[in-house]
Amino acid sequence: MDHQVIVLNGGSSSGKSGIARCLQAVLLPETWLTFGTDTLVDGLPAGLRGSGSGAGIGFGADGGVSVGEAFRALDEAWAAGIAAMARAGARVVVDEVFLGGPASQERWRRALDGLQVLWVGVRCAPEVAAGRETARGDRMAGMAAAQAEAVHQGVVYDIEVDTTHTESMECARIIAAHV
Amino acid sequence: MDHQVIVLNGGSSSGKSGIARCLQAVLLPETWLTFGTDTLVDGLPAGLRGSGSGAGIGFGADGGVSVGEAFRALDEAWAAGIAAMARAGARVVVDEVFLGGPASQERWRRALDGLQVLWVGVRCAPEVAAGRETARGDRMAGMAAAQAEAVHQGVVYDIEVDTTHTESMECARIIAAHV
Amino acid sequence: MDHQVIVLNGGSSSGKSGIARCLQAVLLPETWLTFGTDTLVDGLPAGLRGSGSGAGIGFGADGGVSVGEAFRALDEAWAAGIAAMARAGARVVVDEVFLGGPASQERWRRALDGLQVLWVGVRCAPEVAAGRETARGDRMAGMAAAQAEAVHQGVVYDIEVDTTHTESMECARIIAAHV
Amino acid sequence: MDHQVIVLNGGSSSGKSGIARCLQAVLLPETWLTFGTDTLVDGLPAGLRGSGSGAGIGFGADGGVSVGEAFRALDEAWAAGIAAMARAGARVVVDEVFLGGPASQERWRRALDGLQVLWVGVRCAPEVAAGRETARGDRMAGMAAAQAEAVHQGVVYDIEVDTTHTESMECARIIAAHV
Repeated sequence: MDHQVIVLNGGSSSGKSGIARCLQAVLLPETWLTFGTDTLVDGLPAGLRGSGSGAGIGFGADGGVSVGEAFRALDEAWAAGIAAMARAGARVVVDEVFLGGPASQERWRRALDGLQVLWVGVRCAPEVAAGRETARGDRMAGMAAAQAEAVHQGVVYDIEVDTTHTESMECARIIAAHV
Repeated sequence: MDHQVIVLNGGSSSGKSGIARCLQAVLLPETWLTFGTDTLVDGLPAGLRGSGSGAGIGFGADGGVSVGEAFRALDEAWAAGIAAMARAGARVVVDEVFLGGPASQERWRRALDGLQVLWVGVRCAPEVAAGRETARGDRMAGMAAAQAEAVHQGVVYDIEVDTTHTESMECARIIAAHV
Repeated sequence: MDHQVIVLNGGSSSGKSGIARCLQAVLLPETWLTFGTDTLVDGLPAGLRGSGSGAGIGFGADGGVSVGEAFRALDEAWAAGIAAMARAGARVVVDEVFLGGPASQERWRRALDGLQVLWVGVRCAPEVAAGRETARGDRMAGMAAAQAEAVHQGVVYDIEVDTTHTESMECARIIAAHV
Repeated sequence: MDHQVIVLNGGSSSGKSGIARCLQAVLLPETWLTFGTDTLVDGLPAGLRGSGSGAGIGFGADGGVSVGEAFRALDEAWAAGIAAMARAGARVVVDEVFLGGPASQERWRRALDGLQVLWVGVRCAPEVAAGRETARGDRMAGMAAAQAEAVHQGVVYDIEVDTTHTESMECARIIAAHV
């Protein structure tokens, strides 16, 4: 099987982006692109980002994330775009947070229909992810703990890695062995 | 006419990204996403970015940019992805540098086939763009001057703006009047 | 006269940082460091930064900035540190926002006592600064307009530049002619 | 003993900055600032940063870092500035890379003369640091491995932590117990 897309799902500060970059290095000379929720959020109008943004994506003081109608529609289009890149021949590592659990996965499954996808769960113990969130210093405190387990509920994976005691590079090697 | 994609083409430090963000603000409550060459470059494997990267995208000490086969293929897939986002209902401001001039435009034209596109040239006098490159401090010196005029050669626009003496916000208002 | 410190004072998005980087380029082969309020804010504990931070520095939804006791004390120590760098032989461009107007200047004057200082006012018409704030996309909306004139009230300069119609590089050349 | 400065010394990607931010959180309500080599490097003229910069700081393709006369003088002034901040009452976590080993430490010792300093070694196994360098994706490949052990040679600490198997937050708690 020749995978075209690798979807990494995990909570904030679980280590997805680091694994994605290690995967890019490990999988060379095959070239894999990587994009994530952050790419989409950076592309939003400023008014649809941040607290008080009803239609867009909002980050609460307690680490909660709220998502409005406008964001949901753009997110749907974003997934269609990633799928089109893969169909046009680009291999893509998608770095995602399934805030809606199985509904989020189902949405991506529909978008990626017909493509060979490797579904990867990236787990991290909530208290460890919370510590790494503090160490990064650029995320709203509380997101890591709030998402650590919730985003995996009801989601089905081909493979799972756990960054609690395993380095990003080692997780990437484990995943690469399945590609 | 109801535009679905706005393509901004201009040299490095000509002010495209600033105009894109102003356009997002001016066009609200319509939500427009914005992505650019930088988004794609950030998504590349580290090994395909920077000097000495034959297959990827390289930035020379003189401000020259060289592009290899692997990058070209990914760039093609990227354009297909942007087009698919627009077809799925997301309006997108594309912030681009047509290093290949009319060939680059033709490539985007094919990718965006069937979509309503507004083609915008973003000009800036080379010496002014070079000064802004120094003021930004995060770009390889020389890119602004090298690209300022070259990227417009043979490219056809619906509208052109010039940031030499006009603010990003004012340029955005001029463009928005055509959307 | 041989200046050891250049203090640039101006509102958010007035163009101080860009002028500072252009000054560094224009004044070569003399090496000038540049640091600013942002350097200090980045060095704060996360809990003293952002909204709801009574003791630190808070950014209101309307663009207002509030400053607490803990921040004030650190800011005082920061100025003492910059002065010590200059006394130890490093030339420094300080990129500042005198939120307290003449009281802020007086505080810096005391810290820089005995050093040769060039005081520079960086002005920008409020509506132009507000447009550039939108174009940057990384600042709380409203800061530029709120600070544009307030930070200059009662402050005394050796020279003033206005970025409304003058590029950063040109402003840097005007300033450099006085160094 | 009431520490006024904590100096963290370790190689690139050993986890110093993450520990510094965790220390800031753990030590609250005491407010500690944190600055590092990166703060100084960001403050340099662009021409003194990067490859080919003889007088400044250069980063080789093999991960080697070379330092010229101009950088050395500025670095000395920088240390004097940090010391002055601490003497003026600001507690500071310094995040450093002792490229010169004991000579670097001696230089900081002189600058911090009379202050209560906690000297901390931040170790990380070279191959683990190299993996984290890949995961970060924003550092010149090779720096982590090249510096991992070299920067500790001949340096004397009050306490050492090792991030190979210990989280940043846990390292911060160990250090905080000595403050």
